[in-house]
Amino acid sequence: MSAQIEFVFRETVRIYDTDAQGIAHYASYYRFFTNAIEKLMTEKLGINYPISDNFWFVIVESHAVYKKPLKLGDEIDVVLSPKVLSKKVIRFDISIIRKGEKTTEGYVIQASIDPKTWKAIELPDDILNKIISL
Amino acid sequence: MSAQIEFVFRETVRIYDTDAQGIAHYASYYRFFTNAIEKLMTEKLGINYPISDNFWFVIVESHAVYKKPLKLGDEIDVVLSPKVLSKKVIRFDISIIRKGEKTTEGYVIQASIDPKTWKAIELPDDILNKIISL
Amino acid sequence: MSAQIEFVFRETVRIYDTDAQGIAHYASYYRFFTNAIEKLMTEKLGINYPISDNFWFVIVESHAVYKKPLKLGDEIDVVLSPKVLSKKVIRFDISIIRKGEKTTEGYVIQASIDPKTWKAIELPDDILNKIISL
Amino acid sequence: MSAQIEFVFRETVRIYDTDAQGIAHYASYYRFFTNAIEKLMTEKLGINYPISDNFWFVIVESHAVYKKPLKLGDEIDVVLSPKVLSKKVIRFDISIIRKGEKTTEGYVIQASIDPKTWKAIELPDDILNKIISL
Repeated sequence: MSAQIEFVFRETVRIYDTDAQGIAHYASYYRFFTNAIEKLMTEKLGINYPISDNFWFVIVESHAVYKKPLKLGDEIDVVLSPKVLSKKVIRFDISIIRKGEKTTEGYVIQASIDPKTWKAIELPDDILNKIISL
Repeated sequence: MSAQIEFVFRETVRIYDTDAQGIAHYASYYRFFTNAIEKLMTEKLGINYPISDNFWFVIVESHAVYKKPLKLGDEIDVVLSPKVLSKKVIRFDISIIRKGEKTTEGYVIQASIDPKTWKAIELPDDILNKIISL
Repeated sequence: MSAQIEFVFRETVRIYDTDAQGIAHYASYYRFFTNAIEKLMTEKLGINYPISDNFWFVIVESHAVYKKPLKLGDEIDVVLSPKVLSKKVIRFDISIIRKGEKTTEGYVIQASIDPKTWKAIELPDDILNKIISL
Repeated sequence: MSAQIEFVFRETVRIYDTDAQGIAHYASYYRFFTNAIEKLMTEKLGINYPISDNFWFVIVESHAVYKKPLKLGDEIDVVLSPKVLSKKVIRFDISIIRKGEKTTEGYVIQASIDPKTWKAIELPDDILNKIISL
């Protein structure tokens, strides 16, 4: 899978994303990140996410750098670039773009686990190929 | 159980409870309500809440009237008055008091269910007696 | 404005809406309610919501009855029926429908205020007419 | 300020912190981080946080590594180690400890800004000294 592949999902900053500083609260950005990953996995790949029958995806690392604050009503593009790090681990590099300007950068890393043992497991080949073929 | 019995739990309005209007977002109050109910059930009654081994508590109704806005850093008292409506249903009347003034009134009604069938079930007598004896 | 007028907004139950009972947390439903009201006000009426230049909308009451639990990935229709109670107060009756079945009923009541005095004020006629003409 | 200085705040994982995987949702950890920072700043230092009269604290970077999942009802210690990176920037290294085991590691970096210009500004000496003297 090429690092250049990007998927873009439009979001709106809602009142509950904001805080008393008049900007989006720093943890709200992970809502935008989650929405984009869920939409990629379910709508583009047809994978039940993050809970599938035989495997779950769990987040093992999250990161965000806030360059410009987002405000109530902002229309933002969440740009997602998935990278298969191993058969068990996928990294999503994420940018938020508002009116052509990058406001936020971050990433989320997830592992696939067996929900019965809670141990990391390799994704089935058909799922992995779907992600690699993006 | 007398309607006069009340339990009081202190909370602080945190930055993530607020929104761009500079006040606590209306849905955040349910966080204060939930905290108070969880503390009553776990700390005062020793009941795993809302997930116990053989029964779960699920919320079937919620209500709040916002008389005065709460702000960042406000120290509030969440006053909880539980009422056993039946062996399956408990109602918690809730007030929020800030510096002697009632700012918020509401209630949460919960039913006990069997998590295997997701049907309402009567609480075990020992649990029910704990609640009634409050 | 006729009580029969309804607006429908599609939502998806996301992982962060759910809790350890495997269902949408009861306070998450107010996120669905808020989204629908914000979309009605901004997209259909062109009103900056809930923060406009000369007036703000603040929530004064919220209510929800949970008939059937919602689960991760559920596609739901949030059905909104606004009612002008006075020049200062609007009530939104709300239902959530999943695959033709009503799962949730509730309402949100909001007042318009002057953000400088934090007192209730009448909405400007042009705004009020927009809402009444829905 | 020595890197060894640590402040510990006790938290409980609440039902609304969890998701349908039965564990704390990854963004909920930032609630634990925020609580600890707010308590340090307000209770230990007497600083209005994150909104003071002449300066605000805004988050410019956040990071978390999830080693072990947290579950409903877990009693956790949030261990906070503040570092003054400059007169404008403070970093909080954070660990979560459950029953002696480190489950989570992360950090939050904040800048002080002038809320009128939204530009980074140096903290007043008395505030800075309070933090350095921790």
